[in-house]
Amino acid sequence: MEAKSILSKLIPYKQGKQTKEIQEEFGLNRIVKLASNENPYGYSDQVKKTLLQALPDFNIYPDGYTAELRTVLAQKLEVEESRLVFGSGTEEIIQMLCRTYLVPGSNVVTPAPTFGQYKHYSLIEGAEVKEIEVTADGYHDLDKMLDAIDEKTRIVWLCSPNNPIGTVIPKESFEAFINRCPKHVLVAFDEAYFEYVDPKANIDVLSFLENHNNLIVMRTFSKAYGLAGLRIGYGIANRTIIEKVNVVRGPFNTTSIAQQAALVALTDQTFIKDTYEKNKAVKATFEKFLKNIGWKYFHSETNFILVETPISGLDVFQYLLERGFIVRPGELLGMPNTIRVSLGTEEDMKELQHVLLELHNEAIEK
Amino acid sequence: MEAKSILSKLIPYKQGKQTKEIQEEFGLNRIVKLASNENPYGYSDQVKKTLLQALPDFNIYPDGYTAELRTVLAQKLEVEESRLVFGSGTEEIIQMLCRTYLVPGSNVVTPAPTFGQYKHYSLIEGAEVKEIEVTADGYHDLDKMLDAIDEKTRIVWLCSPNNPIGTVIPKESFEAFINRCPKHVLVAFDEAYFEYVDPKANIDVLSFLENHNNLIVMRTFSKAYGLAGLRIGYGIANRTIIEKVNVVRGPFNTTSIAQQAALVALTDQTFIKDTYEKNKAVKATFEKFLKNIGWKYFHSETNFILVETPISGLDVFQYLLERGFIVRPGELLGMPNTIRVSLGTEEDMKELQHVLLELHNEAIEK
Repeated sequence: MEAKSILSKLIPYKQGKQTKEIQEEFGLNRIVKLASNENPYGYSDQVKKTLLQALPDFNIYPDGYTAELRTVLAQKLEVEESRLVFGSGTEEIIQMLCRTYLVPGSNVVTPAPTFGQYKHYSLIEGAEVKEIEVTADGYHDLDKMLDAIDEKTRIVWLCSPNNPIGTVIPKESFEAFINRCPKHVLVAFDEAYFEYVDPKANIDVLSFLENHNNLIVMRTFSKAYGLAGLRIGYGIANRTIIEKVNVVRGPFNTTSIAQQAALVALTDQTFIKDTYEKNKAVKATFEKFLKNIGWKYFHSETNFILVETPISGLDVFQYLLERGFIVRPGELLGMPNTIRVSLGTEEDMKELQHVLLELHNEAIEK
Repeated sequence: MEAKSILSKLIPYKQGKQTKEIQEEFGLNRIVKLASNENPYGYSDQVKKTLLQALPDFNIYPDGYTAELRTVLAQKLEVEESRLVFGSGTEEIIQMLCRTYLVPGSNVVTPAPTFGQYKHYSLIEGAEVKEIEVTADGYHDLDKMLDAIDEKTRIVWLCSPNNPIGTVIPKESFEAFINRCPKHVLVAFDEAYFEYVDPKANIDVLSFLENHNNLIVMRTFSKAYGLAGLRIGYGIANRTIIEKVNVVRGPFNTTSIAQQAALVALTDQTFIKDTYEKNKAVKATFEKFLKNIGWKYFHSETNFILVETPISGLDVFQYLLERGFIVRPGELLGMPNTIRVSLGTEEDMKELQHVLLELHNEAIEK
């Protein structure tokens, strides 16, 4: 059997180690997982309460149109219902866009580093991937990205805030970009960390949908909403895009329980506000700590910080792992000599800072 | 923007009408949904009990390796763990196989009629689809399917029991087929209704995996296990196939709650046995009724029956709809003048038979 030839050059997504494995390997009582940008404060109690009161009828297929959640979300976002598409996380929206628009011989433009699945899924559909390095301070180099676009470009991927860095695209830069971007190119704007962005840095990307039919914005319930395990995200775009994506979309691509949980989660904005405030405070404390020990880090509008490390990120990762902290080494994310630290609770971060300080002192001694 | 050209020729999967819609439209108190081959007896109480005792931590990403479920399932099936791949229903396994093996210029062979997603996803990946009509009594025409295979064939889809007909491929026919099938062709064997098959008709397809590296068997928790709303199915094949599929697979393509529910459901084989027995009894009664009124039907090893109708299937569908029963008109499934009836509970089927008898008498009078 002959699989697509590109597949022999790709490896499956490597998830972070499972907590149980590491506990066993290093004989640790407790593991603090700061590797997957999950919400350390859980998810809305109202979601839990609703589900425990009445689980959905699992024997019935989900509503493939996601009708109830669609109505509530459309109202909240002030967009027409027909402008929404749901996926098993934004991750599946990315995959569906690739399956809709990419063919062998086409190409896409992405920043580098960024979320790896843009490249992965684009390659699988036979497209060439043009990666444009971010600027020294970690911002999308939008001018170079524009220059890279040609008549065969089908999608330009923007990630704002950009995972694994944390920076957002400034409003003026985006405005200039989308006005100059050729109309035959789909601008796929991934806002998975939207709820963490400081209102001052929010560029209100949805307002661009009105005049730009080639824009899709992607958001998720996996991050601030704390529903990563249920897999549900969504895209907002004009109907032409949504209609095409719906052709490739699996008819029942989100579960009934995810739809229900997301619906309730949307109504509990207190949980989101609380998550935002706690994250903001923890971030400020961690940044102050990093400044004190003289470690550089990138500006972040998210629930993680990309930190430059005095030794390789892999070595820092290993050092922390043995002490019960899981972070992501930048070497695996295209940023050598960094670690990406998901921001945990105040208490967990205090412990992490303690361990990082020890590492820092040891590094200085050597 | 230019989407794949094939997409303009395809329409999204059309789900059956939602119960609520129909209740409102026809002012009905109760709707009996016999349209999606769901399990009318629900799902295992043990699953419900486990979930209500402790919901998974939804804020944490699912285990992308599906480790716990994998171990239990591998033991039950007596296969190596590395031979399994999980998907959001078998439906996603089908999609992943297309994304792994199909390129523009390749082709696939399918029976017709059969589950529509083989064709749909194959076309999306740019393959040509060669549809081979089933025999008059509704069986795969395996000889003609073999004849249709050429050097560009990448996948041959087999559906046994075949949806929407209900027939299984006899063991001798399959054995002859797979021995003659060229090794460059993936034989994708969809056994979504496996648990409903009479042991006498079970061909033990897993035993063919040993000598046929080009075989993948697909099964699901959506049908007899009654977990359609949670979206989880699996494939069993040799490692070479699994490794390739894992490259295209989304890293978190099944939810943590689906993994947990499936794990518990597997341990409750009493529920499966009970479902099997009830379905068998209801099927026998319904078949007897159809014989009595002289309506022909196809042999079924599933929880549905494809019935030939004296007027168009669409008209019968409409007649039943107005009286509170949702079935699937064969016109939408490639079998005109039939309806596909999912087998409901004894009581629901009694009511259906009553309504069908009225229709029959009206049809005779005309």
